Amino acid sequence: MQDTVWLDEEKDLLCYIDQTLLPNELKICTCNNIFDLYDIIKRLSIRGAPAIGVGAAIGLYAACARFEDESEDGFLYSFRKSAEIVNSSRPTAVNLSWAVRRMIKCAEGARGSGVEGIKIALKAEALAIYNEDIETCKMIGFYGDTLIRDGARILTHCNAGALAAVRYGTALAPIYTAHENGKSVSVYADETRPLLQGARLTAFELAENGIPVTLQCDNMAASLIAKGMIDMVLVGADRIAMNGDAANKIGTLGVAIIAKHFGIPFYVCAPLSTIDPFCESGKDIVIEQRNASEVTEMHYKKRMTHKNVSVYNPAFDVTPNELITGIITEKGIFKGYELSTIEQLASARA
Amino acid sequence: MQDTVWLDEEKDLLCYIDQTLLPNELKICTCNNIFDLYDIIKRLSIRGAPAIGVGAAIGLYAACARFEDESEDGFLYSFRKSAEIVNSSRPTAVNLSWAVRRMIKCAEGARGSGVEGIKIALKAEALAIYNEDIETCKMIGFYGDTLIRDGARILTHCNAGALAAVRYGTALAPIYTAHENGKSVSVYADETRPLLQGARLTAFELAENGIPVTLQCDNMAASLIAKGMIDMVLVGADRIAMNGDAANKIGTLGVAIIAKHFGIPFYVCAPLSTIDPFCESGKDIVIEQRNASEVTEMHYKKRMTHKNVSVYNPAFDVTPNELITGIITEKGIFKGYELSTIEQLASARA
Repeated sequence: MQDTVWLDEEKDLLCYIDQTLLPNELKICTCNNIFDLYDIIKRLSIRGAPAIGVGAAIGLYAACARFEDESEDGFLYSFRKSAEIVNSSRPTAVNLSWAVRRMIKCAEGARGSGVEGIKIALKAEALAIYNEDIETCKMIGFYGDTLIRDGARILTHCNAGALAAVRYGTALAPIYTAHENGKSVSVYADETRPLLQGARLTAFELAENGIPVTLQCDNMAASLIAKGMIDMVLVGADRIAMNGDAANKIGTLGVAIIAKHFGIPFYVCAPLSTIDPFCESGKDIVIEQRNASEVTEMHYKKRMTHKNVSVYNPAFDVTPNELITGIITEKGIFKGYELSTIEQLASARA
Repeated sequence: MQDTVWLDEEKDLLCYIDQTLLPNELKICTCNNIFDLYDIIKRLSIRGAPAIGVGAAIGLYAACARFEDESEDGFLYSFRKSAEIVNSSRPTAVNLSWAVRRMIKCAEGARGSGVEGIKIALKAEALAIYNEDIETCKMIGFYGDTLIRDGARILTHCNAGALAAVRYGTALAPIYTAHENGKSVSVYADETRPLLQGARLTAFELAENGIPVTLQCDNMAASLIAKGMIDMVLVGADRIAMNGDAANKIGTLGVAIIAKHFGIPFYVCAPLSTIDPFCESGKDIVIEQRNASEVTEMHYKKRMTHKNVSVYNPAFDVTPNELITGIITEKGIFKGYELSTIEQLASARA
């Protein structure tokens, strides 16, 4: 499986698939400076919470590998400024600030080994974040697969697949694992307006990997579920609060309510790094508001609505824990009220 | 307010706004033959259940006014064949078959008055259907307005406005009436994928008539309602069963479930002609399946998804009566279980 983001270790370059061009063009791009990195994340060339985290870590390293500061203090000052810029590129995906914090901690921890020593430590940390992401997604796939029966028809929203991580993804990892284990699975992908990550990305990667996929407009999910055509819902998350409330791509809340109405299990798949130990409930999650033109101007590249129309265009919504059957992580499957018992999260809060 | 469909009485022409061109172009077109009429309805140049009924009646008259049959039998044969063709243009909107049946009954009833006499009767019937539609929508507006408080924020899905009828519309009629009565109302319009009737038509006509309108993607409705930003939902219907189950534009079911979840009233607005006296429940309603390209090819006019992707693209879904707070008609507001007590419907079944 093709990586979504990775480090060119020889040239110290962040390499990534430009996801804004999919599915019409599979273009590999590179980045070695902070301002491009900010742009790449902001305009969703790299998107998906885990991929943003890995991309930010590798991108930060690639940029700072080129810093010419001779003093540790100078280097660390530039590094922290760079980290701040990257961290401000998108507000909701917690993996971004999680990865940036890890990189800052690593740099501070390497103080005393000289600028070159810090750079070596940062490279190792970026690679660790990259490798852990692959392992984490594999384990999410392992646990999620235990819930998937042969012949399962799974609905997903947005893209929480290989393209949202380094490989495998979160919500799609159980599907890839089930497929590898010889189960027949089929996926119904919500197209996911306004930016069509379902139509452009989820449908693309599943079809490329030989998994049958049907595309529907977001507003068709209720009809599918009402007709008994869906066995379970798997989605990703951009930030999960400690009570299990989960922010994910706009439209997820509606799918969760509809799944609950019809008694279909609804699972959120995410690494522990998506759970924000400092966030008590969904009310504390900042929701990014994006540009109105994303909604108004897709139709034939002409504005498709009247000029005196306001636009409501939040990028995410929050699904309350009572609508979530379980949260599938690399450490197992949890209910919202169990999250505070996970040692890794408890220690982060301590 | 500009009519959506009407008869040019001098030239015997069906006149209509081509709704596929809105909001970028307001083009008035004419039609005087059956094959064009079939196409116009099929490709949604005239759409919306009441407008389809009126357009079919006027179009049938405009076409048959040009028939050169000299015998009544010949004329009536051609007329019935024409009626069959028009009736097959779309399967779900019951107003189409209702209007066509009225025209056939009128033609048969005028037998004996000669071909010219039948044509005169058909013209009168088409005009009656047109005028009744205006009155009916006014009355839906009258009854619906009684439910709207000053300052109300109303969510609607698809277009059941003036453009879906001759004037005023069904779901938007109460909003126009409330506005005329000096109430402040604002509307949140679902864009309504795949064909964007909300973005293109509802937003257009409300903005043109000075009513504040906010557009959102379909998958954002749950977020709006969860935040307490919506007081009520008003939608139209394409066919209502005798138990109150209502077929309407795909996505309506999801909105109804979400409204129920959050305790927001959900009203269906429709003339009695949309209630099918021969349809017991939603299970009996045929749902039109439309072309996959409507879903796959809007994005920049290039195919926006992978070639090995199936598409689920039903044009409608069915909302069960238990999710509908009330059905607002020209005769008052009814619960589903009350429909069979309406005399007009009971007598049609007798």
